[in-house]
Amino acid sequence: MTENRRFLLRRRPEGDPARDDFELVSETVPSPPPNGFVVRNHYCSIDPAMRGWMDDEPSYMPPIALGDPVRATTVGIVHASDNPDYPVGQWVIGLNAIEEYSVVTPGHFTAPVDIGAVDSPTRFLTAMGAVSLTAYFGMTDVAKPKPGETLCVTGAAGAVGSVVGQIGKIHGCRVIGIAKGPEKCRRLIDDYGFDIAIDYRGKSIEDLSGEIAKAAPDGLDMVFENVGGPIMEAEMLNLAAHARIVLCGLISEYNADERVGLRNLWQLIVHQATIHGFLIADYAPRFPEGGAKIMEWVGEGRLRIDEDVQEGIENSYDTFMRLFTGANEGKQILKIA
Amino acid sequence: MTENRRFLLRRRPEGDPARDDFELVSETVPSPPPNGFVVRNHYCSIDPAMRGWMDDEPSYMPPIALGDPVRATTVGIVHASDNPDYPVGQWVIGLNAIEEYSVVTPGHFTAPVDIGAVDSPTRFLTAMGAVSLTAYFGMTDVAKPKPGETLCVTGAAGAVGSVVGQIGKIHGCRVIGIAKGPEKCRRLIDDYGFDIAIDYRGKSIEDLSGEIAKAAPDGLDMVFENVGGPIMEAEMLNLAAHARIVLCGLISEYNADERVGLRNLWQLIVHQATIHGFLIADYAPRFPEGGAKIMEWVGEGRLRIDEDVQEGIENSYDTFMRLFTGANEGKQILKIA
Repeated sequence: MTENRRFLLRRRPEGDPARDDFELVSETVPSPPPNGFVVRNHYCSIDPAMRGWMDDEPSYMPPIALGDPVRATTVGIVHASDNPDYPVGQWVIGLNAIEEYSVVTPGHFTAPVDIGAVDSPTRFLTAMGAVSLTAYFGMTDVAKPKPGETLCVTGAAGAVGSVVGQIGKIHGCRVIGIAKGPEKCRRLIDDYGFDIAIDYRGKSIEDLSGEIAKAAPDGLDMVFENVGGPIMEAEMLNLAAHARIVLCGLISEYNADERVGLRNLWQLIVHQATIHGFLIADYAPRFPEGGAKIMEWVGEGRLRIDEDVQEGIENSYDTFMRLFTGANEGKQILKIA
Repeated sequence: MTENRRFLLRRRPEGDPARDDFELVSETVPSPPPNGFVVRNHYCSIDPAMRGWMDDEPSYMPPIALGDPVRATTVGIVHASDNPDYPVGQWVIGLNAIEEYSVVTPGHFTAPVDIGAVDSPTRFLTAMGAVSLTAYFGMTDVAKPKPGETLCVTGAAGAVGSVVGQIGKIHGCRVIGIAKGPEKCRRLIDDYGFDIAIDYRGKSIEDLSGEIAKAAPDGLDMVFENVGGPIMEAEMLNLAAHARIVLCGLISEYNADERVGLRNLWQLIVHQATIHGFLIADYAPRFPEGGAKIMEWVGEGRLRIDEDVQEGIENSYDTFMRLFTGANEGKQILKIA
């Protein structure tokens, strides 16, 4: 009998997730429900958003129930099926969980994928995944870059940030990336073609604000914010008139026990600037459009999308924590088959 | 020889402005500069924005220099002139100061006014003044109310807030006002026709959030923010999807030594909401359009604009402080002639 290892949420993390907030258990492989199927997950997308799902605060999705496996987008192969649209052997993508086998009732976010069209199934979680689509729609639909404008991206070496900055360059913008440590800053310049990289480590808001001011003497026309906290406050001190801030994530806050808050909101008035809360879910009907454009840029060599693939479901916790230590080099993926 | 009493800024206030941050001095009346004129100020507009001009932080206008009179919009009569467009006896509006006589070189914000068209010169500082125009353009151009939507206004009984709420009603919205104390709340309902008034005094963020939730079970489609701080955090917990927040002022912060900051920015992402920093200056070319529409509504009895007129330049400090204690009932004006 085949076993189904599952990475369960046992306790809601307080601050930084601890190893024993989770448990890897082994269960039997389930049978497909009526009209549903069971998928053998091969790759799990590991994303900062998962941290939010572990809290029981009101959010855009229900929290992960204690005792349930940790929710994640996965790509895998149909293992058993009661649905003719999803025959055994078909590759599929869906919002499932970190577990070897998931029970799926087709619906929102579940879709068959054509594995023959790409060099690796991981592409559906990276170049064509929600993370790249977030960068694509956040930039083209919300920030609306114009040639010659200045864009500042935080979490710049991350999966969203690296794509955001490259899309800024494709649109003729001057791109500043803020990242942690010299190696990430080097990658911003060498791998992703950013104009300026700022290492935020060990810097006060004043230091950081001064560096941004030097890099953008006329101010920031666009900010693509993945981090929040003091880094965002430093950006707020450097806005150009009518700046657009795409608020995509606040990773600096996710593990914080006490949030400091954004203390210089006043700058929005001074610069008649706008903060747009951004969620990719709204754009689901336009995913094919965005995915096609991204793959076109990738094909033309104008967009580089890195993947950081770790292996083994037993490494779920360590792989998740790479997002917060900043160890991941590109979009974090966990290969479990 | 006529004297010119002037209300000078002597020291930058720390927190709440103190009486001896200012000094009332008496000087001689100046002569008109080449191509300029001297205006005898009759009415001064007393606005929360003046508090910001007293700090030496970067803002949308240079700070008031120490030793200069406190900047204010005034309406008065040309007293002496070297400019044929501004003959002696002409009523004018301009961004001048709290002083009996101002030296004016015509330019931005200075304009002759037709006193015959209104029942009181104060109308140019109230119904047709920057404060009403802020409400008008902030609502019609940024919030863009649709019939049936829910609007929440803070500082609701104030000069901007009371007009904002009434414009919401004119557009067929359900209007919630947040104000300080039962008397102001009574005025929101009885005088301004708001649907619901919430008294924020002595309430925690949780209390306030609960009251807003009861008043707006489907969430707030629009927030017109004049206050900031914990009241804004309570609103943030009650946003409807795609809520528009017009950030017009942050009076709760102006006298604060240490700002707490907005701690639930995350809600912007959850609800795909937007904060728009708003400054009226941008709309200067459209003031006649806005003023005409406001006067039309006033004439039709659909818009009530209250004025709180205090008298005497020797009462400048006490009149200014009425804005922060919330003593003013309507747009604060100081009559000095």
